Amino acid sequence: MKAGIDLGGTKIQAVVVDDEHAVAGQARLPTPRSGGPEDVAEAMAEAVRQSAAQADADPAELAGIGVGSPGVIDARRGTVSSARNLPRWEGTFALGKALSSALGPRKVRIDNDVNVATEAEFELGAGRDFRSLLGVFWGTGVGGGIILRGRTWLGRGAAAEIGHMVVNIDGARCPCGRRGCVEAYAGRGALEERARHRQDKGHRTELFKIMEKRGRDRLTSGIWARALEADDKLAHKLLEEAVDALGAGVASALNVLDVDAVVLGGGLGLRLGEPYREKIEKAMLPHLFASENPPPFVLAELGDLGGAIGASLLIKT
Amino acid sequence: MKAGIDLGGTKIQAVVVDDEHAVAGQARLPTPRSGGPEDVAEAMAEAVRQSAAQADADPAELAGIGVGSPGVIDARRGTVSSARNLPRWEGTFALGKALSSALGPRKVRIDNDVNVATEAEFELGAGRDFRSLLGVFWGTGVGGGIILRGRTWLGRGAAAEIGHMVVNIDGARCPCGRRGCVEAYAGRGALEERARHRQDKGHRTELFKIMEKRGRDRLTSGIWARALEADDKLAHKLLEEAVDALGAGVASALNVLDVDAVVLGGGLGLRLGEPYREKIEKAMLPHLFASENPPPFVLAELGDLGGAIGASLLIKT
Repeated sequence: MKAGIDLGGTKIQAVVVDDEHAVAGQARLPTPRSGGPEDVAEAMAEAVRQSAAQADADPAELAGIGVGSPGVIDARRGTVSSARNLPRWEGTFALGKALSSALGPRKVRIDNDVNVATEAEFELGAGRDFRSLLGVFWGTGVGGGIILRGRTWLGRGAAAEIGHMVVNIDGARCPCGRRGCVEAYAGRGALEERARHRQDKGHRTELFKIMEKRGRDRLTSGIWARALEADDKLAHKLLEEAVDALGAGVASALNVLDVDAVVLGGGLGLRLGEPYREKIEKAMLPHLFASENPPPFVLAELGDLGGAIGASLLIKT
Repeated sequence: MKAGIDLGGTKIQAVVVDDEHAVAGQARLPTPRSGGPEDVAEAMAEAVRQSAAQADADPAELAGIGVGSPGVIDARRGTVSSARNLPRWEGTFALGKALSSALGPRKVRIDNDVNVATEAEFELGAGRDFRSLLGVFWGTGVGGGIILRGRTWLGRGAAAEIGHMVVNIDGARCPCGRRGCVEAYAGRGALEERARHRQDKGHRTELFKIMEKRGRDRLTSGIWARALEADDKLAHKLLEEAVDALGAGVASALNVLDVDAVVLGGGLGLRLGEPYREKIEKAMLPHLFASENPPPFVLAELGDLGGAIGASLLIKT
């Protein structure tokens, strides 16, 4: 048995898997929004304890714990830096040490959250029949993962940033500060700002009413889905712009990489599902160089647990 | 001794190199603009004969002939298809067989022109200190070559098409038929169309006067350089737009690949040289995700002979 943790800005998802990668236990806890890295680490440890209990396992006897994390990761040292979506995590925190002293297992491995999710789809999910893969994770941001010749490609450490490919040179301002990135149109963070801005300009939308009714303080993927169901014009329009940017971005990435397949995941990607996968593929084709031979473009199969399962793959048993 | 041929739409450049890759002989012939593939193959054979004579070598005793070619290449069969810049080369032609029966050596190896030029810079030129590399070839079109972990990355056969990355979703029409590609702004073919279009709209330019004065029928790299020297406003303006597109495209490619270095070559790249390399780098930085740690961005070192020398590397001795 080994554990995997997907550390997100909203939730901490842990799994305990057996030697065949079957999920034997899982737990989801909200990510602490105050305190600091220590509190996040403690919540992560608690999620592993709950998963282990469900799997009838002793956390101290797990073969190891893999972590998919945002921020800048030093895998060798087991540290995470500049995880700006997490509370007071601007600096560097020894997450590996904190988890192993809280739980017992000496082996903790940390990697980038989208890399482990891509790896999971490649090993066990929708990408398992291919040798090279582009993972597209459409959520708060737009992240990417690349596998070439069976191995994750990291470049000098900053590869696969498909959310920051330029689709409009002088285009919209991105949360990253640059202009015209895919994420400036498609990231859930940017989408919320765009929705608010247009509402302020007089566009009518149910988005924020749904948000309030559901007691949330941001536009979650579920709220976007509900607004679409309610046929909210602004939600449709903004998501169309997101789809156009994602389509052009994925096409550009494929024009460079020409990988065997593309897997679409992420909070929004999974929540909006097949109809939006199709829309993105349709927006991609007019920009694809290999338009006569487009690669398979499929939804992630491991769903919400993909990140945590992928993290468990960091532990080789 | 072995030979390399760079087959272009305008010229055929051949070299004969010794075992240390030093150029022992070279010849440049115009690419036939009428006739068909057989005539092009004969001109290629003649360029090798002239190079061999210069190197005091017998063409029949060369270890082999490498070819960098446009079009769709079947390396195993030694065929080239759909080379649309070459006369009547819409179909498939057994270039390998034609060359070996014209010249004697049994070993002919053919690969994509930009791949062999990238390989040449990687092995012998500006990229020799790196393990991964992006080659950017700014000429009639905008081509790319990618080397990762020391090996050329081809994807499913259509990788590295950086000229067709999207920099403006609904932007200018590209010679490839798509919209908003890098090449739509930066390729010499597209630049000539843009120049003609703006002249027709009343913009003043010396570009076509210089062309006529020099007895040419298209805007060569040299004509663009002369127009810049004459401080031609339209030439400056169009090349600025080209630089912006190239900068955004290279940044997007790096945001995906994060390679160790970028090498800029191609007819226009080499002719406009260092000042334009600098401009492109400057246009790239605002879009680069790893902006605090940009990779070295350098000019190709092997110059005009890079393609032919790279082609000779296809012959392993």
